[in-house]
Amino acid sequence: MLGKFLENVKNTRPIVHNITNYVTVNGCANILLACGSSPIMADDAEEAEEIVAISSGLNINIGTLNKNTILSMLKAGKKANELGRPVLLDPVGAGASKLRTETAFKLIDEIKFDVIRGNISEIKTLAFGAGTTRGVDADVTDMITEETLDNTVSFAKKTAEKTGCVVVITGAIDIVADREKAVCVRNGHPMMERITGAGCQLSAMTAAYIAANKENVFYAAVAAVCAMGICGEKAFLRMGKLDGNASYGNYIIDAVYNLNPDELERCAKYEMR
Amino acid sequence: MLGKFLENVKNTRPIVHNITNYVTVNGCANILLACGSSPIMADDAEEAEEIVAISSGLNINIGTLNKNTILSMLKAGKKANELGRPVLLDPVGAGASKLRTETAFKLIDEIKFDVIRGNISEIKTLAFGAGTTRGVDADVTDMITEETLDNTVSFAKKTAEKTGCVVVITGAIDIVADREKAVCVRNGHPMMERITGAGCQLSAMTAAYIAANKENVFYAAVAAVCAMGICGEKAFLRMGKLDGNASYGNYIIDAVYNLNPDELERCAKYEMR
Amino acid sequence: MLGKFLENVKNTRPIVHNITNYVTVNGCANILLACGSSPIMADDAEEAEEIVAISSGLNINIGTLNKNTILSMLKAGKKANELGRPVLLDPVGAGASKLRTETAFKLIDEIKFDVIRGNISEIKTLAFGAGTTRGVDADVTDMITEETLDNTVSFAKKTAEKTGCVVVITGAIDIVADREKAVCVRNGHPMMERITGAGCQLSAMTAAYIAANKENVFYAAVAAVCAMGICGEKAFLRMGKLDGNASYGNYIIDAVYNLNPDELERCAKYEMR
Repeated sequence: MLGKFLENVKNTRPIVHNITNYVTVNGCANILLACGSSPIMADDAEEAEEIVAISSGLNINIGTLNKNTILSMLKAGKKANELGRPVLLDPVGAGASKLRTETAFKLIDEIKFDVIRGNISEIKTLAFGAGTTRGVDADVTDMITEETLDNTVSFAKKTAEKTGCVVVITGAIDIVADREKAVCVRNGHPMMERITGAGCQLSAMTAAYIAANKENVFYAAVAAVCAMGICGEKAFLRMGKLDGNASYGNYIIDAVYNLNPDELERCAKYEMR
Repeated sequence: MLGKFLENVKNTRPIVHNITNYVTVNGCANILLACGSSPIMADDAEEAEEIVAISSGLNINIGTLNKNTILSMLKAGKKANELGRPVLLDPVGAGASKLRTETAFKLIDEIKFDVIRGNISEIKTLAFGAGTTRGVDADVTDMITEETLDNTVSFAKKTAEKTGCVVVITGAIDIVADREKAVCVRNGHPMMERITGAGCQLSAMTAAYIAANKENVFYAAVAAVCAMGICGEKAFLRMGKLDGNASYGNYIIDAVYNLNPDELERCAKYEMR
Repeated sequence: MLGKFLENVKNTRPIVHNITNYVTVNGCANILLACGSSPIMADDAEEAEEIVAISSGLNINIGTLNKNTILSMLKAGKKANELGRPVLLDPVGAGASKLRTETAFKLIDEIKFDVIRGNISEIKTLAFGAGTTRGVDADVTDMITEETLDNTVSFAKKTAEKTGCVVVITGAIDIVADREKAVCVRNGHPMMERITGAGCQLSAMTAAYIAANKENVFYAAVAAVCAMGICGEKAFLRMGKLDGNASYGNYIIDAVYNLNPDELERCAKYEMR
């Protein structure tokens, strides 16, 4: 079933508007192109609404936010809601500073998000108002393991209910949840933590998947999470002994470029929970 | 003949000042280094004029413009005119928002550009005041094909006359035109559309070529367009079955690094039109 | 001895806060991850102090400074001093514009830096108030050679004394100096000048090394400089005939990822001077 979500991206080639950080933006643009989408980055408040209007989806990432871009996020998000364009939030580093935490709350208050994707510490910050985010990484005490999985799944569902969004929590095991159901994804590789921007890239790609599959946001997000994980696995298999995280990062995007619907279908490892 | 333009870049190692977007800036810096030029990025209005003064050419790219950088573009461009330094405009996304379209017009009004490089939709926006830009990509209905080539060439010449610039329109076939003549370049590969920033990189490299060849801006631009296309072809030949757009992007820059004047001369496919 | 400095980075995984330019920021993040550190980029003045507080070190790089980020640099730097977190300055392009030169001076005035790392032209600008910086590259007349080495070492020591910092001057030969002693490092490869951001990356990595080795900033900096040089050498050995600067840049980060303490120990070429 997941394969058709990728097929829809490739067939409709949705334009995704990204208001995102300057650290990982190039990888976000390239992964969008890799999966068949067309990226546009525009973060000036004067044009935010117009760019949303020509796009099929919006990806808001607070990785290097500032007062100008926060304003653009708000304007773009509201316009996307008005026009019925799917919107995703990546609350990078929520919990690491008051500005990030408060901005994430403000965005959630004023914009109806379709999907929120973050690591467990970021999502806990959104749920409880304060977190244990280790910079932009999840705190060790928060790690998703088999032992903590049931609790985390129920936390994810509650957060999905509270926010009205599909909540995607990524880690050793990934969770996609709405208020009623949750899926655990067991694709991916620990090496993905050693490159900058794997999370940002997944968010961008998820925005493309939901833009091309508006009628089924939940499973479109599952498909994107599986796709990223599969590509993380394939990229790892490709590594030679001289390769490190720079080559690995390129291999992931290459793998996304080469991933086809059948392979996504075949290699996705997920279960209802 | 084209080879000597590259030779001049390598011999004079011109500093190129770039006011550009944060999406593709790293690739622009690396392609400038690859071709033998020396990049400097500086977009604060307070230093824009001084940085122009120590540079041999200026590359203005409106990819992620904002009110601060627009001011810097204007100051830098006027200073470059005053000092006789070649200036190039890449009107990324002109037509996609009023801010982009109006900024492009304002820049053209107040600065004398030597070269404007864009896709067909962007250049049409400049010519007709409104466009059908598909985000940052050319609209399908605008594509340059053998059938539309004569019309596009004559449009390019007219736009060159109107703006007083050399106009470079890139697509499946590339066109370089001034008011009197046009050259069609048939190098390149469709895969170039699948990486972010091939256009931005060509603009940056063209700025280096015209900076090192002020006395013949038209053919310097032709040389840069051919060079980029040849490298796009070579990069494609290098791709293995696991490679995708990330590796392809690196291979293009690698190819620019390894391109020598003889090869440029030998592989360039262009004709007067 | 140098190996243990790298070991400490890997064991403590220090968070390094970077206020840096948007050109080379992705490489800085990836090299920090490669060496075992955890990067966070945050340049809004509202959060600068909080981000410093959760970090173990601060890397300030003026590559694409503007009035907003200068304010953040000042706030972050003062907070780091207050909290006893090591701070590094990379005065990119000091000498190329008044804004850069004056900002560098202001930062040095108001912040106590542990390390300043730059090319010879940038460091001369800091010492003499004006420089011969060629854009962001060292001026040819400034090059460090065997002939000029004694003079440059004594200049480095004097600058270290004057600024109260460990001064790192990188070039064909690298120098690490405090007021009393200097070390010359003979690792590295000329190819490193052909990628954008090798200097920025070294600065970021040095910030990680000093953050994890606060008790011995001088030799931690020597270790970082040797590590970068060794990786530049290894990356060059890995190059195939189609490779150019893009692949080379990836290979350097890959090499940092694979560098272990023993190899650093074994391959470091440095001498007291």
